[in-house]
Order: sequence, then C-alpha cells, then structure tokens
Amino acid sequence: MIPVPIADGTLNQALPQQVLEVTRELSVFLVENAKSARAFLKEIKHPKPIAELTIIEIGHHTDPAKIIQYVNPLLQGNDVGIISEAGCPGIADPGAQIVAEAQDRGISVVPLVGPCSIILALMASGLDGQHFRFCGYLPIKEPQRSKTIRALEKQSMQGAGETQLFIETPYRNTGLLRDLVKYCAPNTRILVAVDITGSAQSIRTMKASEWKKIQDLPKLPTIFGLLASR
Amino acid sequence: MIPVPIADGTLNQALPQQVLEVTRELSVFLVENAKSARAFLKEIKHPKPIAELTIIEIGHHTDPAKIIQYVNPLLQGNDVGIISEAGCPGIADPGAQIVAEAQDRGISVVPLVGPCSIILALMASGLDGQHFRFCGYLPIKEPQRSKTIRALEKQSMQGAGETQLFIETPYRNTGLLRDLVKYCAPNTRILVAVDITGSAQSIRTMKASEWKKIQDLPKLPTIFGLLASR
Repeated sequence: MIPVPIADGTLNQALPQQVLEVTRELSVFLVENAKSARAFLKEIKHPKPIAELTIIEIGHHTDPAKIIQYVNPLLQGNDVGIISEAGCPGIADPGAQIVAEAQDRGISVVPLVGPCSIILALMASGLDGQHFRFCGYLPIKEPQRSKTIRALEKQSMQGAGETQLFIETPYRNTGLLRDLVKYCAPNTRILVAVDITGSAQSIRTMKASEWKKIQDLPKLPTIFGLLASR
Repeated sequence: MIPVPIADGTLNQALPQQVLEVTRELSVFLVENAKSARAFLKEIKHPKPIAELTIIEIGHHTDPAKIIQYVNPLLQGNDVGIISEAGCPGIADPGAQIVAEAQDRGISVVPLVGPCSIILALMASGLDGQHFRFCGYLPIKEPQRSKTIRALEKQSMQGAGETQLFIETPYRNTGLLRDLVKYCAPNTRILVAVDITGSAQSIRTMKASEWKKIQDLPKLPTIFGLLASR
C-alpha cells in the first residue's frame, strides 16, 4: 500500500525515503489512475523505463468481478504496489477490496507511511483525536441533509465526545459550511481544513456562530469536522 | 504537529525529509514525554545542543489548568513543535487541547506527515476505508464489554458499512480477541494489527470463526477492527 503526495511538488514533505526505495523495487502496480501513477513513478525516478512496468488501472470504483484478475499477479508470486490518485490507498480511496481478497488468501499486506488528509486535518483541528469517525460524503438532498447534520452533531456528544469528519465535492464547500452553521448549535466547533499539504492550506476550527461571518470557501479539496460543546 | 516514529530505528520509513528539516529549525517543544522527545531530537541531529532547547513536558493527560501556560511560548511569537511519545500528536495521544487553544486564538497550526498506526492498520486491513470510526479503548468490565462489542458490530452494519477500530492494553490483547470471537457473528471480519511499523508487524483480517483457532496474541501495541458481513 503505497501512499503518494496529495498536492503537486510535495514529495519531500509527503513521503519517507523508504517509501521511495520500496516503490523503486516493484515492477507491478495496481493503480486508481494510470496517468497519475506514471507521473509519480517518473517523479520518484523509478529505475525501470515506465513503459516496461506493469501498470493495471483499477479505477475509482473497483469492479468486484475483476478483483480476482487484479489479485492474479500476487498469486503468481509478484510483489504488487497499490497506488491511489492522492494520499493513502484504501482510505477514502480504492484498494480495500483488493486487499480484502489478499487477506482472505493469507497474502501479506504492508502499509507504507504517507499523507492522509483526514488525519492531518484532525491533528491540526484541536478536536477530539481519542474518538473520531470518518463519514465520507453527506447526503445532498433535503430533508436527509439537515437530518444527517443534526445526527452527526448528536453523535459527537456521545460518551466522552466523538469528532465527526466528512468531505464534500469542492464546488459545494460553501453550501456545506452554510448548512453546518444553519443546523448546528452556535457553540458546536466546526473544522474546515482546506487544501491539506497544498499551497492554499488552511485549517481552522471555530464555533458555528463564528463561521457565520465567513462568506465563501475556496473550491479546493476540504475535510470538514464537527464536535458539539458539552 | 510533529509525528515521530512508532518503532525504534525506523526514522527512514516513518518520516519525510521535510519533517526533519522543519523540526531542526524549532527551539521550543511541547512534548508528551521529555526523555523520548530528547532522544528523537538527538536522533534527527537537531543542530542546537539539546540542553539549550526549551522542552516542556505536557504529560499523557494534559492538565486543563496548564493549557494557558503551555500556549504562552506561542503568544510570545515562538514557533512551537508538539511531539507525542509515538506516532501523530493529537491522534489517540495528547496535544489536542493545546491545539484547541491555539485555534481559539487564531494561531496557525501545521500538521506534518508521519506514521499513524490507526490509518496504517486500516490501509492494510481490507476493511471499509470509506467509512470508519476509532473508538479508543473498550470497557473492561462485564456486562459493558460484551454490550459494547455487540453495539460496535451493529454499528458496523449501518449505511454502506462502517469499520470499527479500537485499541487495548497489550497484555489484554488475547483476552480482547477471545471476547470478539465470542460475541461477534462467525462471518464478522476481525482485524488484528500487531506492532505496526515494528519488527513483529503482523496485520491480519479474518472471520471471527477463523480467529477461533488462534491461541494467543503477542503483548505488543495492537489495533483491532471489525466489520460485520452483510
């Protein structure tokens, strides 16, 4: 499981030396996107010509019928690298079904260290990192959307508190922030972590009442979070 | 927010070059454990004599009354590094309350990339990485313990599925695995990720019925996970 940088030109801040070394020793890759994987392998100066590497595109939504085919190089005794378009494969990204098949067959799976925007956002949020939950995307349509936001706020109060983390399609960032401000209690702390590791990185946690003054968020990948006050 | 290696002697596989560079430029550190922080700063060859650095121990459970005192170096205009004993500060580790105070005061918080055992375990588990939850420690006493395990299994079935992740004090690892096998459905997939990034690293996901044959787990830091079958 090979993480890749989230933002362009951040190799030096995203990956430990050993990740590059291990990746350079592999010749077979299962990748979310062949073009971005080739660019990454070139950037890390893979010693083999890129055209001689086996790069199999698994796409964004892995077709269950093809899992066996994807696992085949492993069954033939190859070490195989799994690479997503950005960040950690298998985390809010494809790869998990292939790993599940490998686990079922007792094949050893090794995770390498790299950038995970969810964890980076949480680290810098000041929200609870002892208990947290990543929920993916929220529903877009009402009444499911407001119902979900209220349920997340309620869930964040359970036990000693549980941070609720989620994402949105970038062009809808401003709309989501407005809905969070609208449906959460004024004292609920809301995290907006924009462009993690990128040049426009901004990680702010403020109360819902304070976010009210913010007009617009950039249309960049953003991690949202919330934790109700108690 | 400065991550450190989880296992000894793994600097090269745990941290990107830039993390070392940024850390070497800082002179003030808030740390979970002064001894381990000093050893880390020495290992990365911090250019200043360790004795000349300001290293303030915040302990494992940050005293709320001392937060203002800890934030003081920031208010005086210093850049401050936060370092936990292992892995990412603020994630299942202290640091979050100090960050919360910094966020309240509009002080910029920058997360650096490093090893997070929860995420590494999840990446290699084959369990759902689109929706997941980290629950910390489970209750030790009955009936709360079996009730919690059953609730986690039920929660893992909600929506499209939600991986439940949790930890245990290492000497109780075997007991927790036995309880998981006892209280979960035979087809529920259980992750046991032992000694992440360490020399005894083992990350296995099997059905509860398959784990039944395992007698003992090593007394090493372990991330557990479960996802019910549907």
